[in-house]
Amino acid sequence: MAKTVRIGLLGFGTVGTGVYGMLNDNREAITRKIGLQVEIVRIGIRDTSKPRSADSDLFTTDLQSIINDPNIDVILELMGGVDPAASLVEQALLNGKHVVTANKELIAKHGSRLVHLAKSKGLDLHYEAAVGGGIPIVQPLKHQLAGNDVIQMMGILNGTTNYILTQMEQKGSDFSDALAEAQAHGYAEADPTNDVEGFDTAYKISILASIAFGKQVPIDTVHREGITKVSKLDMEYADSFGYRIKLLGIVDAVAHDIVRVRVHPTMIPRTHPLASVMDVYNALWLQGDFVGDLMFSGRGAGSHPTASAVVGDLVDVGRNIFMGGNGSAIPYDEGMKTVNMDDLESAFYLRLRVLDRPRALGEIATVMGAHEISLAEMQMRTLPEVAGDTTQRGEIVFLTHSCKERSLRDALDSVSKMPMVTDVAALIRVESNVL
Amino acid sequence: MAKTVRIGLLGFGTVGTGVYGMLNDNREAITRKIGLQVEIVRIGIRDTSKPRSADSDLFTTDLQSIINDPNIDVILELMGGVDPAASLVEQALLNGKHVVTANKELIAKHGSRLVHLAKSKGLDLHYEAAVGGGIPIVQPLKHQLAGNDVIQMMGILNGTTNYILTQMEQKGSDFSDALAEAQAHGYAEADPTNDVEGFDTAYKISILASIAFGKQVPIDTVHREGITKVSKLDMEYADSFGYRIKLLGIVDAVAHDIVRVRVHPTMIPRTHPLASVMDVYNALWLQGDFVGDLMFSGRGAGSHPTASAVVGDLVDVGRNIFMGGNGSAIPYDEGMKTVNMDDLESAFYLRLRVLDRPRALGEIATVMGAHEISLAEMQMRTLPEVAGDTTQRGEIVFLTHSCKERSLRDALDSVSKMPMVTDVAALIRVESNVL
Repeated sequence: MAKTVRIGLLGFGTVGTGVYGMLNDNREAITRKIGLQVEIVRIGIRDTSKPRSADSDLFTTDLQSIINDPNIDVILELMGGVDPAASLVEQALLNGKHVVTANKELIAKHGSRLVHLAKSKGLDLHYEAAVGGGIPIVQPLKHQLAGNDVIQMMGILNGTTNYILTQMEQKGSDFSDALAEAQAHGYAEADPTNDVEGFDTAYKISILASIAFGKQVPIDTVHREGITKVSKLDMEYADSFGYRIKLLGIVDAVAHDIVRVRVHPTMIPRTHPLASVMDVYNALWLQGDFVGDLMFSGRGAGSHPTASAVVGDLVDVGRNIFMGGNGSAIPYDEGMKTVNMDDLESAFYLRLRVLDRPRALGEIATVMGAHEISLAEMQMRTLPEVAGDTTQRGEIVFLTHSCKERSLRDALDSVSKMPMVTDVAALIRVESNVL
Repeated sequence: MAKTVRIGLLGFGTVGTGVYGMLNDNREAITRKIGLQVEIVRIGIRDTSKPRSADSDLFTTDLQSIINDPNIDVILELMGGVDPAASLVEQALLNGKHVVTANKELIAKHGSRLVHLAKSKGLDLHYEAAVGGGIPIVQPLKHQLAGNDVIQMMGILNGTTNYILTQMEQKGSDFSDALAEAQAHGYAEADPTNDVEGFDTAYKISILASIAFGKQVPIDTVHREGITKVSKLDMEYADSFGYRIKLLGIVDAVAHDIVRVRVHPTMIPRTHPLASVMDVYNALWLQGDFVGDLMFSGRGAGSHPTASAVVGDLVDVGRNIFMGGNGSAIPYDEGMKTVNMDDLESAFYLRLRVLDRPRALGEIATVMGAHEISLAEMQMRTLPEVAGDTTQRGEIVFLTHSCKERSLRDALDSVSKMPMVTDVAALIRVESNVL
């Protein structure tokens, strides 16, 4: 009879239900592969009134009783959020229990402290499911890629926003219609802020940066822009230039111990591997000094894929327990040095609304030139007349060559003050130098 | 001062040189990340007369002296081949040394035995570099994906053949010209048999199958066809149907403990993620019951990417030594049950050369129908007349619906005996049911 690893589960929402189902469905295969049984012995929830798809004897609202149960070997924290997850995880570690979590906010904000605590107690703290759902990313970055100096990482790390952008591109939907459709499919929450404003992606990319560069990225240093301002018009222009617009989390290595971490809509060439990642799929594209460029892609969210990652971590914890290992948590300190966007070298897409089109183009180009912004491509069109107003209105779209973000902002400052410029309608960074 | 892990290197070819360079170039970063130093203290080679890019004091032709050196913690086996690698690795393990190897033939043929030996001695035996070069595949399959029942894996696992097929497709080259170009670039060896006949892919896909299904696939049960018969004409037809031709290693789960492992040129839809993997890139596409579909892609060969995988394994071994772990080798037994190709359900591409085109088409379709082969698409063209012969010659190309391979072979047997069929010029399996 195989040894049993006893699990206490905190949270029984989408992911918790998936993990419970996976452990039941694949029980034999898991036992055969790893030589031990895994059994969920307690499930902590906040609300006992909801119907639950598991034996009712397992449930309790007394989360502390799970954390303190001496018969439990591993805590699966699948509640999300920092409070009370942070203190529960900390207490579990202090009580000598291994922890597996899918909680990106928790790890982004408290990863260094909690992993150090786990390490000091000889325990595992794994969080593969926190980034990229079922796609193995976190552990490969810690292990198989550990010998590389990472040069750049770019990820589509949020399925909700990728679904919305895909809908906008493929169906010509507005953002609000595409969001409504995502909500109808259960891909977006009633309050979509965490996804569409890029918080979720910011947590995930900062976790990846912390692993790759060995120190925790202060989450408030991550430059974050969401997708609410992306318009179908900009998607059409992007397409005409050979690009797609994706919400990317990006880490640039500025020096071996200094990074820039950013989340924003990005125009990438249609030929780039990330440009083909559609719907709720996630992907991470990475460039290392020895490995070259790599990509991982797959289902980045949802009950089953996320359960896959959680159970993978659990299997590793189980093996360690079984083999009398010392815990394989890999700690990192706080205080990663970061830089802001000022010195970013990037190409840019600009869409300006102007009066008196012919004159505007020349004057704008002159101002841009004075700021050393070189223009790579340009499109111009006449906008329909406003009733009762004979002013000629137009729209000018530029792609710049690579320049410093600060210079671009300075130039735009001047441009936006020009009387014939009515509106800087869009500003999107362009990744033009990737493979 | 960080603890030092002392390494004995066997083999100093492409990969060995890369590993030596990587450990030197990224020494500080590796020490910072893992809290220990790694140092190559001996390098075993067969020929001392070649110039070497490392300190000459390190080299010896006495490989046994490295295996028996009590000051060496880890053996990196980068020689390739089974003899003498198998006995050297075995002896190293018996001497209490961890082993990291990039040797796919060794693991495909002796993995079960050697990993069991490592496990019994509390040692690590890692082989990430044996499959997919720098792409993390082996360890993610063992760990992060361990909870899944794998449904299917399909991989482009050999850079040489993918380069050749890419050249043929993009430049319209013949196989022999594309091979010559691959040889000129150093992507193919003077004797290309191991690559172009699919042996290399067979080793790799059987390793992945052994990990995913927990038993070693007998290598002689792998169905293997190379790319030497792929013609540019078939590539053009494939393109006209919306497909590309790739050399794939494929594992089908027939039951939870029975697999079919095969290597052959395969037509895949241009929209499939594997169809975009070009040149020397490798990729593994995988479908698991919980994780859904995943893809890993990147540089599957070459000095630097392979070094990345070897050093990743080495870092893991180092961490285990540092933490007093018990070795994390995951053993699997011999004797995977496999089935042959007879019951494979697949669509097929067929190219036939015929006399008397109009009559031939009807009669062939009748014979195919009698064998319950349903035709999905057809193209027909007249071939130029042979001088002095007025016989009307033609070429008929079919895509079938999915059918059993045995039925298709039976049908072809009858078809090839028809007087008006001069030649079954091509037969290529088609993956039509993938995403």
